[in-house]
This record gives sequence, structure tokens and C-alpha cells, in this order.
Amino acid sequence: MSDLILYVGNKNYSSWSFRPWIALEAAGVPFTDHVIPFDFPAGNPQFRKISPTGKVPVLHHGAVRVWESLAIIEYAAELFPEAGIWPKDRAARAEARAISMEMLSGFRALRNACPMNIRRKPGAIDLPEGVTDDVARIETLWKDALVRSGGPFLFGAFSAADAMYAPVVNRLEAYCLTRDETVLAYMARMKAHPAWQKWQAAALAEPWIVPEDEA
Amino acid sequence: MSDLILYVGNKNYSSWSFRPWIALEAAGVPFTDHVIPFDFPAGNPQFRKISPTGKVPVLHHGAVRVWESLAIIEYAAELFPEAGIWPKDRAARAEARAISMEMLSGFRALRNACPMNIRRKPGAIDLPEGVTDDVARIETLWKDALVRSGGPFLFGAFSAADAMYAPVVNRLEAYCLTRDETVLAYMARMKAHPAWQKWQAAALAEPWIVPEDEA
Repeated sequence: MSDLILYVGNKNYSSWSFRPWIALEAAGVPFTDHVIPFDFPAGNPQFRKISPTGKVPVLHHGAVRVWESLAIIEYAAELFPEAGIWPKDRAARAEARAISMEMLSGFRALRNACPMNIRRKPGAIDLPEGVTDDVARIETLWKDALVRSGGPFLFGAFSAADAMYAPVVNRLEAYCLTRDETVLAYMARMKAHPAWQKWQAAALAEPWIVPEDEA
Repeated sequence: MSDLILYVGNKNYSSWSFRPWIALEAAGVPFTDHVIPFDFPAGNPQFRKISPTGKVPVLHHGAVRVWESLAIIEYAAELFPEAGIWPKDRAARAEARAISMEMLSGFRALRNACPMNIRRKPGAIDLPEGVTDDVARIETLWKDALVRSGGPFLFGAFSAADAMYAPVVNRLEAYCLTRDETVLAYMARMKAHPAWQKWQAAALAEPWIVPEDEA
């Protein structure tokens, strides 16, 4: 058993949890995960005990607590510098961080209207203002990175940047938000990754239905 | 002249710009800044030429473009590892990144209701739902960090975490949002920092008034 324990929410729904989980899993970082279902609508009281913000994901490493998806990824990247969590090239790493933080801070319209939902059968919904602009920017930044790196992932090998956008790959598929061939091919490669497949299998095995996240 | 050029928005209003600017300035990183006023309501067309997102801040370093406030700070921390941009201790650095990302991704109620405004004469406003919760969480995380480090800044010496919260220091003062003595003392130390004083002087000298940001 690893001394890194990653607490996550429902694998079907928790986009914030999916990001560090797939970053660590794809990089071969040894960790144990622990699912704490949301338990809507009041939130799960266990969250307060394990996390300073009362939210998941949170990483426990001995006495250290690391919260926020990207801070967990940065911490793992420091602990395992050879795991290739970030691109090796400095300029590529800077771009990978920039687009990761664009994800962390933005795309609110898309995230509010189209919750991550691994088991959702793809189907279009009415889109509120802003979603189309969010998707257009995501398509642009993915294609810019793929052209520069040559793929198969945003910066060549799978990196933290792919992990930060993994929930968006699900959103674009689940709500039929793109027809761009390059984008669809990248999404197919993401979904075929062994780490994605492992998360997806666990999500599909979950019994919980959260009405708020069923758009 | 440095080969690092940081493009920022109006110093009176641009909270996103203030973060990397004060991080680099306080750490003694050599850079040149370049102000491009917002030019509301259409946005400034120059932004598109200098930044892939059409937004400031953006750092130019030769052919490299780094956008997003915290990605700029991470890039500078890599270029100048001895500048102390992040705390030296790994656990402290993880916490500094976690609270920096909490700032990047959260506190929407506070940020929407109470825009940064360096020249604003302090005065209370009617607070929409959520602002009080945001302020309470910020007070808690500042005090947790200050108790652990012993101050004077969140992690002892001035770090990226202080930089990420610098605009919030202004918000808490400008809208009279806290009465906590520990918090007020930290805010006073932030405002007395030479880097803060330099930004403030430039902000006060600006001629531009942006009605949207005058709450």
C-alpha cells in the first residue's frame, strides 16, 4: 500500500477528482484511492474530517494535506520528478501549465451547463449562452498543442494538461459538442488510455444517481 | 532592459495582472512591464496581438508566451529558482500552491461583487449571497498559514501565495469586509511592502475610469 492516499468523490460525476486521479494513474505514481460519495444535498460530513476546504479531491501524504486538483498534481510531480507528469521542455511545460490554469479558472458556462457524467448516453441539450465560445476556445487550444507536439496527447506523451482536460473530453462527448475531426480523434485516444478505462469501469459500477448532475 | 516583458491591464483595476506583477517584483526578478488599458466596453484590440487568449496578463520571453497569472509565476519560479518565489519547504510549498489555486478557481461571489480598485476610498456596500462565506474562508486560510509560519507573510517571507491574494487584500480593505485583527495586521504588512507601494503609485497616477468596476 502506498503512503499517498487520494480521496475522491463519485467517479461518475466528480470532475475535480478525475483530474489528479488520471494524472497520477497515467504517470504510474503509486497511490491508493478512496471514494467518498457526495451524499447530496447536504454534502458528505466526512469531507470536513479529511479536507481543510471540506471538498474532494484531497491528497494525504503522512501529515501533509494537499487540496485543489492541480496542486495535488504539482505535489506528485515534485515527489516523482521522473514520472513525466509535466512536459520536459520548459516552453512546453509553461504552455501546459497555462492551459491547465485556464481550465482551473474558466469555462464556467460549459461546466455549469454540462456536468461530467461518465455513464451518460451521448445526446445534445439546449445550450445556454457562453458554452459555444468555451468549446471553441478548447478546440483551439487542443489543436494548437497537438499541432506543435505532433500528438498523440497534447504535449506528446500523456501529461498533466491532458489530465486537467479529461473531464472536458467526457463533456464534449456526452453532450455532442464538437464535430471537429482532430478534436474527436484526440478524444478517442484519451478514452482508450488504460487509466481512462480504469476510471470509467469504476464509474459505471457505482450505484449513486445525483439528480443535480443529470442534465 | 530585461528579456522578460509582462503585459498588464490597468493597474487600478486588473487583479489578474497584479498577481504576477507583484510576485516578480517582490522576488527581484528582472522584467519590464507594459500597461495596455482595458479600453471598455469592446476590450482592447491589442490584447489579441500579444496573447493567445486575448487577455492580460501575458509574459513574453523571446518566442515564449505564458498566459494565466499563476502560470506566469510558475515560469518565473523555474527561471529564477533562487528568488524564493515559492516557499523552500515542500509541505509549505504544497499548501501555498493549494491556496493559490483556491484563489484562481474560487471566491466568485467576492470577486464579482467587489472588484479590485486601488484608488477606492474604503466604504461598505450591500453584499450579495456568498461574499461573507468567501471572506470567512479567506480569513481562515490566511490565519492558518500565518500561525504555522509565524509571518510576517503567509509562508514567512513574501511568496507567490501572498501575490495571488494581493488583489483580495485590496478588496477586503476597499469594501470594509473584515474586522479580524490578525487579518488587518497582515493586510497592513502587505500594503507596506515596497512592491505594493510601487504598483499603488502607478495605479493612482492612471487617468482611466472604468464604470463597470466602480461598485
